[in-house]
Amino acid sequence: MTTAMREEAFAAPSAVARQAAVAPGAWDAFGARLRTQRPEALLTIARGSSDHAAHFMSYLIMARLGRLVTSLPMSILTLYQSKLHCPGLVSLAFSQSGQSPDLVEPTRFMRAGGATTAAFVNDPDSPLARAAEWVLPLCAGPERSVAATKSVIAQLVAGARVVAAWQEDAALRAALAGLPSALERAVAADWSAGVAALAGVDRLFVIGRGTGLALAMEAALKFKETCGIQAEAFSGAEVRHGPMALIAAGFPLLVFAPRGPAQAGLLALAAELRGIGARVLLAAPPGTPGGDLAIVDTETPDLDPISAVQSFYLMVEALSRARGLDPDRPPRLAKITRTQ
Amino acid sequence: MTTAMREEAFAAPSAVARQAAVAPGAWDAFGARLRTQRPEALLTIARGSSDHAAHFMSYLIMARLGRLVTSLPMSILTLYQSKLHCPGLVSLAFSQSGQSPDLVEPTRFMRAGGATTAAFVNDPDSPLARAAEWVLPLCAGPERSVAATKSVIAQLVAGARVVAAWQEDAALRAALAGLPSALERAVAADWSAGVAALAGVDRLFVIGRGTGLALAMEAALKFKETCGIQAEAFSGAEVRHGPMALIAAGFPLLVFAPRGPAQAGLLALAAELRGIGARVLLAAPPGTPGGDLAIVDTETPDLDPISAVQSFYLMVEALSRARGLDPDRPPRLAKITRTQ
Repeated sequence: MTTAMREEAFAAPSAVARQAAVAPGAWDAFGARLRTQRPEALLTIARGSSDHAAHFMSYLIMARLGRLVTSLPMSILTLYQSKLHCPGLVSLAFSQSGQSPDLVEPTRFMRAGGATTAAFVNDPDSPLARAAEWVLPLCAGPERSVAATKSVIAQLVAGARVVAAWQEDAALRAALAGLPSALERAVAADWSAGVAALAGVDRLFVIGRGTGLALAMEAALKFKETCGIQAEAFSGAEVRHGPMALIAAGFPLLVFAPRGPAQAGLLALAAELRGIGARVLLAAPPGTPGGDLAIVDTETPDLDPISAVQSFYLMVEALSRARGLDPDRPPRLAKITRTQ
Repeated sequence: MTTAMREEAFAAPSAVARQAAVAPGAWDAFGARLRTQRPEALLTIARGSSDHAAHFMSYLIMARLGRLVTSLPMSILTLYQSKLHCPGLVSLAFSQSGQSPDLVEPTRFMRAGGATTAAFVNDPDSPLARAAEWVLPLCAGPERSVAATKSVIAQLVAGARVVAAWQEDAALRAALAGLPSALERAVAADWSAGVAALAGVDRLFVIGRGTGLALAMEAALKFKETCGIQAEAFSGAEVRHGPMALIAAGFPLLVFAPRGPAQAGLLALAAELRGIGARVLLAAPPGTPGGDLAIVDTETPDLDPISAVQSFYLMVEALSRARGLDPDRPPRLAKITRTQ
């Protein structure tokens, strides 16, 4: 049996290759604009999985370029009628469909107020694309599964592509060029141990940190959507400030520990949790002691969370079917969600 | 039987009165500094319940003053060694103990880099207080329960006090002056229906929006800490982008719908969820059709989430005992958490 989710997850590497080829000038031009403008602060506008991609980009911008990025609570504009001060800001909206009013209305507001506005959209004819000054095409192709995969990977890559263009970072650009082949290896990685470990679970914590926190957030949402598992994401630091109270012997956790500055603390946390009897499933680079799921290396640690998402999507799709569910049709969800 | 958590929740109104009396000049002076500086962007530094108070203040600043506020992922400084651009920024750290290195180190970094730094702390001799240029005392008094109550209420009020001073808003100042008596009424409110409804629950969604989202986040954490309930908070919009898939017939939710621009959408969501068979516990102003728990009015809708937290703390403390637990001693947590 195959599903649209599985087919679309398989198609992600070619979508990433297409994104690099379709409009390379647009990314460079937007990067040049950011270098000229030198924004003191940026903001993102997104919901659901698109918001996780926005978080990934925000973290890269804060860590590599030293500028603050706020995740906009859209309700300050759509409900509270804030007179947000726009001049000098850069507004970055992420959406597959580009349809939801709470993305379109804030983008229009920001543009009318003098902010630089950009939309990362899969549908370049959508209301969101028409509202923004800059349109960066995701090029993921049509997506049928309610649980988005290739469009989310395309958004994660788009965020890294903006950073590479802004920073004119040759190493990150080269790593992006090599990403489709790394993602093909991630498609082929064997994460079936995850299906076995999580088949009977109905609650779960997913832990990440740094560039990997967005990955944990995205995994937690997919567990909810496709598997009916109440999964919640925490940073490796935040989990110690309260949520730890829930972690009794046998409590299941998925810990993502890709390469990078956050890895050592995450591996120490995983060992500590195992010490108190928790059931820890550890995703880490191949050969990591205690690792259960191998995160395929990309050409830079900053892109490893994307290869981890690629392998994760195929695992969670298989887990959904193993639990007797249809990952393409989560209960009570539609492909396009419109919120105010 | 009484507990430290219960005693300290009862003491919150007097803590708020003390905060207003101890150093009124400090708040006005800090407000004047913000008016002079006119920051393009601000950031908060906090974890756990303190981070929820920071979120509440951030929302008020964005909605009422139109400036962006970023919740700083401390790891960009403590782990990723970001060269965050500090001049012109305002950094606001929230902590009961003021001990954790991942609050102190970023505050020092921001101050050395030229940002305006402030610490909202209960312990004015703490490392965090010594690191910041401005110290705004919470005045909650010593807190023994691991599950913080009066210090969190003092932080929520401190955030609103900064906004009132910055904006020189007479109505908000008057409402703050009247808050201790509103909180006394909230202490006396009967939320026992919540104990009955949640006695047998082990998973839960908590919904809020706008100024009430921080309240939902705080409630979800307290359910975890004191009751062993895996509760997760969502905005009334975000819950439609995925988490909805988990909400089958009988699924328990707590919906906070205080007065304000977000209320109508939250009441509609509560009715919709009841329509699909979910078990919705609705906290709303007295007399709201379908309401289960009455949120005591303060003198402005923007402060109603604080009265709701006040009533909630006493409810969740009673729920913890009803489940046979000790709310003062959550498993695996200490009063002071130090993270990097």
